[in-house]
Amino acid sequence: MSLLITTPHTSKYENWREAFAQIAPDLKVVCGAEQASEEVTYVLTWHPPKGLFQSLPNLRAVFSMGAGVDHITSDPSLPNVPLIRQRDAGMGTQMSEYALYAALHYQRDFDIMRLNQQSQTWAPFVSGVRPRLNIGILGLGTLGSVVANALVQNGFPVSGWSRSKKEVDGVTSYSGEGELGDFLAQTELLLCLLPDTEQTRGMVNQNLLQQLPKGAVLVNVARGALVNDDELLQAIDSGHLRGAMLDVFHIEPLPTEHRFWSHPNIVVTPHVAAETVYAASAQQVSLEIQRMEAGLPPTEVVDPSRGY
Amino acid sequence: MSLLITTPHTSKYENWREAFAQIAPDLKVVCGAEQASEEVTYVLTWHPPKGLFQSLPNLRAVFSMGAGVDHITSDPSLPNVPLIRQRDAGMGTQMSEYALYAALHYQRDFDIMRLNQQSQTWAPFVSGVRPRLNIGILGLGTLGSVVANALVQNGFPVSGWSRSKKEVDGVTSYSGEGELGDFLAQTELLLCLLPDTEQTRGMVNQNLLQQLPKGAVLVNVARGALVNDDELLQAIDSGHLRGAMLDVFHIEPLPTEHRFWSHPNIVVTPHVAAETVYAASAQQVSLEIQRMEAGLPPTEVVDPSRGY
Repeated sequence: MSLLITTPHTSKYENWREAFAQIAPDLKVVCGAEQASEEVTYVLTWHPPKGLFQSLPNLRAVFSMGAGVDHITSDPSLPNVPLIRQRDAGMGTQMSEYALYAALHYQRDFDIMRLNQQSQTWAPFVSGVRPRLNIGILGLGTLGSVVANALVQNGFPVSGWSRSKKEVDGVTSYSGEGELGDFLAQTELLLCLLPDTEQTRGMVNQNLLQQLPKGAVLVNVARGALVNDDELLQAIDSGHLRGAMLDVFHIEPLPTEHRFWSHPNIVVTPHVAAETVYAASAQQVSLEIQRMEAGLPPTEVVDPSRGY
Repeated sequence: MSLLITTPHTSKYENWREAFAQIAPDLKVVCGAEQASEEVTYVLTWHPPKGLFQSLPNLRAVFSMGAGVDHITSDPSLPNVPLIRQRDAGMGTQMSEYALYAALHYQRDFDIMRLNQQSQTWAPFVSGVRPRLNIGILGLGTLGSVVANALVQNGFPVSGWSRSKKEVDGVTSYSGEGELGDFLAQTELLLCLLPDTEQTRGMVNQNLLQQLPKGAVLVNVARGALVNDDELLQAIDSGHLRGAMLDVFHIEPLPTEHRFWSHPNIVVTPHVAAETVYAASAQQVSLEIQRMEAGLPPTEVVDPSRGY
C-alpha cells in the first residue's frame, strides 16, 4: 500500500512529502508518475498525465489536489474507484481574501482610479459613501459558503445560486434554472465558483451576461472553461459590463496574445486565488485513507456524472 | 443665530442644505462665504477662505467638515472660540474599506500581478497561503480605532502608535517617541492616520522609513504634509520599501508633473478614502449647537495647540 503524488508542479513534491511525513509518518508516499506500480493503492493528483491510471492496477481511490475534479475526469481511463476532492484545505480563507479584494476594488472604484492614474487625471467625483455592491455567488457550495460568510461579515449583501437550495446565514439562496434569471437581475458583482462540468461549461455566455444589470462586473475564480471569452469581451466593449477580474482561463498560462492581458477593464491574475494548503490537505487525505482501510466509505466523494 | 457653511466644493451646498433641513429644520443655514454677517454664530467649513473669520464678529464655534482641522488653524485670524471636528460622520466605515483594500492589495500581491499583467507575465509563484501582513497604524485615534477593528476582524495582526497609550481590543498599542522605533520595526504595512500638526509635519521621512523592515509599504490616508515626498521616492527606488498607496498630497489636485503619478510602485487615489457623510455630520453639528445654546460645552473640541 502506498500513496502516489503527481502534479505538473514538480517543485512542490518536497512540500507534499514534508506534510505527509508530519501528519502520517507511517504512510508510504512516492512522487512522480514514473513511480506508478502495483504497490500504489491511492493517488493524489493535479492534472494527471494521460494513461497514468493504466499503470495502477491496484488503485483504491483517487484524490484531487483541488476542489475541482475536471482535470481528472477528463481522462477516460479513470477507473471506477472513489474520486475524492479537497473539502477546503485552506482554500476558503484564500478565496475569501481574493473575493473581498475584488468586491472592494469595484465598490470603491479602484478600477476607475487606476485608469485615471495612467492619464494623471484627478477625479475625486467618484468618492463618497455608496451602498454596498450586491454580490452574487454562482456556485454556493463548500467554498462558496465560506466566501459568502466573509463578504457578509464585511457588510456586503450576498446572494448565491446553485442547483439545489442552500442554507447559509445572511445569504439569499436561489436555485435551479428557474431562479437563475432573478438571481442575475439583482447581482452587481457576479463571483463565479462553479465546478467545470458538462452543464456549466460555457455557461457564462452572452445570454447570461445580458441578464446582469448594466454596469455589473464578473469575477471568475473557478475554471476558465465556464466563460465564453469572446462574448465576455463583447459584453465589456459594448458597455454592458463594467469589467472583469479573472484568475482562471481556458488555456493556462494565458497565451501572451490573448486580449484579456491588455484590456483596460480586465484584471488578470495567474490562477492564484486559492491554493491547496499542504498540511490541511495531507490531513484530509490521510483521514480518508484510514477510513477506507478500516472498511468505511470516504466522505468527500465526487459523483463523476455530476462532476462535483 | 445662523449656521454658515463654506467649502471650495460649492456643488455640495445643496446636499448640506438638505441634510440640515431634515435633521434641524429650525436651524437657519446659509451657504457661501459671501453670506458672512453679524447674524452668523456658527461656521461649518472645509478650507475656509482667508479672512472669513474677520467678517463674523458674533461667532460662537467653528466646525470642521473633516476629522482634521489643519485647514482651519492655518488661518491666523481664527478667533478664540471652540473648534470642533467631526467625530466619525461615516468616515470610519469608508476608511476601513480603503485600509482593508490596501491590506489585501499587498497581502495577495496584487501590486506585483498588476505589473506582471502589463508585460503579459504569468508568474503564479507569488501565490499560496502566506502569513497576514502586520499592519501598523500611525495615529490610533477615533478613526484609527475603527479601522483597527475592521482589520482585526479580518484576521490582520494590528498595532498602533499614538502619543498616549490607547486601549483597543486585539490591538498592540505603542506610544510616545520612546516606543516609535519598536512599533516601526514590526510594521509591514504602515497606515498613516495622524493629524497634520507642527509635530507630525514631515514626520514620514527617510529616518522613519528606514526603521521599517525591508519590503514594507506605506499607505497614507491622512494628510500629504506628513510625508517627505522625495525621501519616500528614494526609499522605494532604493528597494527598501515595496511601494505606497497614497490618497493625500502636499498639493491637491496632485500636479500632473509629480513623479507619484507614473511611478510603477505607487497607487495614487484622489483624496477619496473617507468623505464626511452629510446626514451624520449634520446630526453631530446640530447636537453640538443645541448643547452650546443650552450653556453646555461642546464635546468634540480640538485643542488648537495640539491640533487634534
